[in-house]
Amino acid sequence: MIRGLTKAGLGELKDDKQLIELAAEYGFQSVDLDAKSFIDTYGLDHAKEILSENDVVIGSIGLSVEWRKSDDEFSGSLPNLILEAQAAKELNCSRCCTYILPSTDLKSAHLMSLAVKRLRICAEILNAYDIRLGLEYVGPHHLRDTWKNPFIWTQEETLSLIDAIGLSNVGLLLDSYHWHTTGLSSEDIANLNENQIVHVHINDAANIPVEELKDNERLYTGEGIIDLELFLKSVKKTGYNGPIAQEVLTSKQATQSIEDILKRSKAGFDKVFNNL
Amino acid sequence: MIRGLTKAGLGELKDDKQLIELAAEYGFQSVDLDAKSFIDTYGLDHAKEILSENDVVIGSIGLSVEWRKSDDEFSGSLPNLILEAQAAKELNCSRCCTYILPSTDLKSAHLMSLAVKRLRICAEILNAYDIRLGLEYVGPHHLRDTWKNPFIWTQEETLSLIDAIGLSNVGLLLDSYHWHTTGLSSEDIANLNENQIVHVHINDAANIPVEELKDNERLYTGEGIIDLELFLKSVKKTGYNGPIAQEVLTSKQATQSIEDILKRSKAGFDKVFNNL
Amino acid sequence: MIRGLTKAGLGELKDDKQLIELAAEYGFQSVDLDAKSFIDTYGLDHAKEILSENDVVIGSIGLSVEWRKSDDEFSGSLPNLILEAQAAKELNCSRCCTYILPSTDLKSAHLMSLAVKRLRICAEILNAYDIRLGLEYVGPHHLRDTWKNPFIWTQEETLSLIDAIGLSNVGLLLDSYHWHTTGLSSEDIANLNENQIVHVHINDAANIPVEELKDNERLYTGEGIIDLELFLKSVKKTGYNGPIAQEVLTSKQATQSIEDILKRSKAGFDKVFNNL
Amino acid sequence: MIRGLTKAGLGELKDDKQLIELAAEYGFQSVDLDAKSFIDTYGLDHAKEILSENDVVIGSIGLSVEWRKSDDEFSGSLPNLILEAQAAKELNCSRCCTYILPSTDLKSAHLMSLAVKRLRICAEILNAYDIRLGLEYVGPHHLRDTWKNPFIWTQEETLSLIDAIGLSNVGLLLDSYHWHTTGLSSEDIANLNENQIVHVHINDAANIPVEELKDNERLYTGEGIIDLELFLKSVKKTGYNGPIAQEVLTSKQATQSIEDILKRSKAGFDKVFNNL
Repeated sequence: MIRGLTKAGLGELKDDKQLIELAAEYGFQSVDLDAKSFIDTYGLDHAKEILSENDVVIGSIGLSVEWRKSDDEFSGSLPNLILEAQAAKELNCSRCCTYILPSTDLKSAHLMSLAVKRLRICAEILNAYDIRLGLEYVGPHHLRDTWKNPFIWTQEETLSLIDAIGLSNVGLLLDSYHWHTTGLSSEDIANLNENQIVHVHINDAANIPVEELKDNERLYTGEGIIDLELFLKSVKKTGYNGPIAQEVLTSKQATQSIEDILKRSKAGFDKVFNNL
Repeated sequence: MIRGLTKAGLGELKDDKQLIELAAEYGFQSVDLDAKSFIDTYGLDHAKEILSENDVVIGSIGLSVEWRKSDDEFSGSLPNLILEAQAAKELNCSRCCTYILPSTDLKSAHLMSLAVKRLRICAEILNAYDIRLGLEYVGPHHLRDTWKNPFIWTQEETLSLIDAIGLSNVGLLLDSYHWHTTGLSSEDIANLNENQIVHVHINDAANIPVEELKDNERLYTGEGIIDLELFLKSVKKTGYNGPIAQEVLTSKQATQSIEDILKRSKAGFDKVFNNL
Repeated sequence: MIRGLTKAGLGELKDDKQLIELAAEYGFQSVDLDAKSFIDTYGLDHAKEILSENDVVIGSIGLSVEWRKSDDEFSGSLPNLILEAQAAKELNCSRCCTYILPSTDLKSAHLMSLAVKRLRICAEILNAYDIRLGLEYVGPHHLRDTWKNPFIWTQEETLSLIDAIGLSNVGLLLDSYHWHTTGLSSEDIANLNENQIVHVHINDAANIPVEELKDNERLYTGEGIIDLELFLKSVKKTGYNGPIAQEVLTSKQATQSIEDILKRSKAGFDKVFNNL
Repeated sequence: MIRGLTKAGLGELKDDKQLIELAAEYGFQSVDLDAKSFIDTYGLDHAKEILSENDVVIGSIGLSVEWRKSDDEFSGSLPNLILEAQAAKELNCSRCCTYILPSTDLKSAHLMSLAVKRLRICAEILNAYDIRLGLEYVGPHHLRDTWKNPFIWTQEETLSLIDAIGLSNVGLLLDSYHWHTTGLSSEDIANLNENQIVHVHINDAANIPVEELKDNERLYTGEGIIDLELFLKSVKKTGYNGPIAQEVLTSKQATQSIEDILKRSKAGFDKVFNNL
């Protein structure tokens, strides 16, 4: 397993190059970013150089496809997917991830059938570029009735969706916050097969009842009460050896410099990776 | 399009042989029955003879698989599916149908992902026997909250499910009662492709507000207020040329003899098939 | 069924606009062309106008994807597919077709597994734009050993490939020349379901042994010995009501003006469409 | 990884019970057998007891489905698959395997499209019982022209077939003899993902040119010249932790007692498992 960063919680970043250089400086080996925009900015050769000089890989790109709305919005967003997948492949990135909101203004069953069909199309396209699709369930309870109808928010329901899609390059994105807020155990992760896990997010939670935790009030790795050592040990048991990427969603403006934030993050990672 | 019967609404039947003989006597060319049980009772050769002597074909078998409950109940019911599909094929029946209840005690989105996966397995198995799978949406409004959570009940939602399953041998079972109770137009049917229709049910509705029609208070063909001529003309426009099978679900015990019921049914069919 | 044109055999065309105007002038209702290039040249609004003013539709676009070579060539050609599918959808074209060469320098079984996977990806993408994929088998005998290993060239083998792909929007492109050169009967077509036919090509063959007919020595519709009336009647029996597009592959430079060629073509169509 | 046995090369066995008891006695932890016939003989409860008392699991069942011949033979053999899968599940066996002959009397490309479709149906059925399907390529050169047309025999081609099937529960059965006879390296295995490997066979080869090795002249584990330590180390690198089952196909009648054969086999396993 390697130490990774997403941009969430890092404050204002100058550009992708800065992210990669700072990631390297603070001991991170992967960053999640938009591979296409990265290549568009620096050119393919320079983009590769920036990564290789810093010994950093791209952990995952995000799925920009609009799979939750109308057929036209969906098909209108597909051309970008191919370009993004091409870019990811050119930079040796083999993951693309999206999240699933726990409620919806559509009828839930209908959205699920649309999701199966559309995510299958996305996964088939990604497969042509040797990229896997990771689906992230979202645990915080307040989101379960933010929209009209309950959708899905458990690992088990997400595995059912993956089964319904039925392709071998689709799996879970595990996030420690969602693991915590859905009350899962170590076994719930350890019993997964390696190929059921596409990507992993890490971050921490405040010491308040699980039901009250907000999605965008996450804490930095190691600064809360989630048993992150146990989380990582459980992930490791599956054989997963990809990135563990910090993602600290927060509604507050960062008051520290990015360097200070990364120093904290490194300290947190040192602590929870310690006994693996 | 050929005239067909299901057993629903016919009263007490002695056996499948009686059904087939009476069907023939009253001008029906297909019956829906359990092909496996029919062969088990008469033997394959005799079963074939009964059909051919009466010039009657089997329109459709029912899907006996339990696809709405636990994984164990589902997989436990699969062995029968194969035997039933084999029997159907031996009698040249190429349709197998199931209905979708409009509400459920499970979480709706979760049931949908289970439905996609399980019905895909069923369809793959049926495909090995050249049998198509027909899915029937169920319109009566009272069933939309009979169980805890709303599921699906419209033609559009059912087409989405069929799309999510993604196999070419899956389509709709159209039923005039559900067409009526979901407020669809002639175009909603006529715009379908032939291959989107696997089977068709016909029956009639009382002259009360659509919202109050109960699923098991259906009327015999031609005795109610559904524009069945329009229904049939719309189906015909798609190119569909299979059975139109009467299915009169009713909670009351039949007070007429089966012969009288079939006489009525024949009269109803004569009326609505008249101007096709 | 509507009368259609491809560009093959028409000689030098000035541009797509000329093709559409002449098609209309000579009684053709569809043309096969590259929708994306057509929109790129005229702009979407003008392109739509040209079609609607001439009462001509686009029958089919061609599949530009390289599905017969390396993984990289395949995935490198996918971005165009999406743009082409988008363009086709904007012009209400719902067909995309490719042909299958009867021999290959690759190992045949290996190419087949690659074909299934890659054409499934193409079909999934096209499906997002409501476009069907038509596969054309190629009958002329000389092509069966033009490359090292025999691949597939019969309707039956092509239906197996379509089955292996397993998606509902994939079917056959029927071509009268391939029907003739593979020795098929009227029933071989008439027994197909409508949804197994995506597109139809028409053209004629010289009065020489079937084994000696070259792929690029085709004759204009009605000028050879193929029983094209029977061909069309058989197609019609399936319920197919799409374009019948003339495709006259020939190695010779056209010596007539395009107007004269279209006059001949119209006469040929008049003859064979006469008794439908 | 656990030590396993198939029946191949063990000589005359009295029954499954004897196999399991002897396996336990000589340090093997899994046996490959027909779960359905095992339960039919002993009853489910006793069958479970025999396994648990001896601390032996069932590694894999064989796929009895006839997927290489006519559609009727295929569909006629499916009912058994379900019963066998049920039996396997009841005994906690999660693997079902079949082999692919390197040549065929059918046209190769056609057989491949049939194989994709039929093995997908099998895999969907097995999936309903949480069973994975393992496909074994067969390396010995003499089989490449035993039948009329070359089919597939390399790992790469088999991975393409698995890709074409497109389901997540299908993978490779690796066999040291086929690894050796197709000239693969350690990396060819080590670069696989764990989920691409369903099952592993082990056995050894005589010190003659690879091209001359016959499929049914295999040697016992550790008695030939295949670098089986390297083979196992490569498998282990993927994360695979299932059975390594000895399969010694040989045309000669065993002259030793089964106990002596198992003593030899144990010695061979001790040798090659030594430094893992």
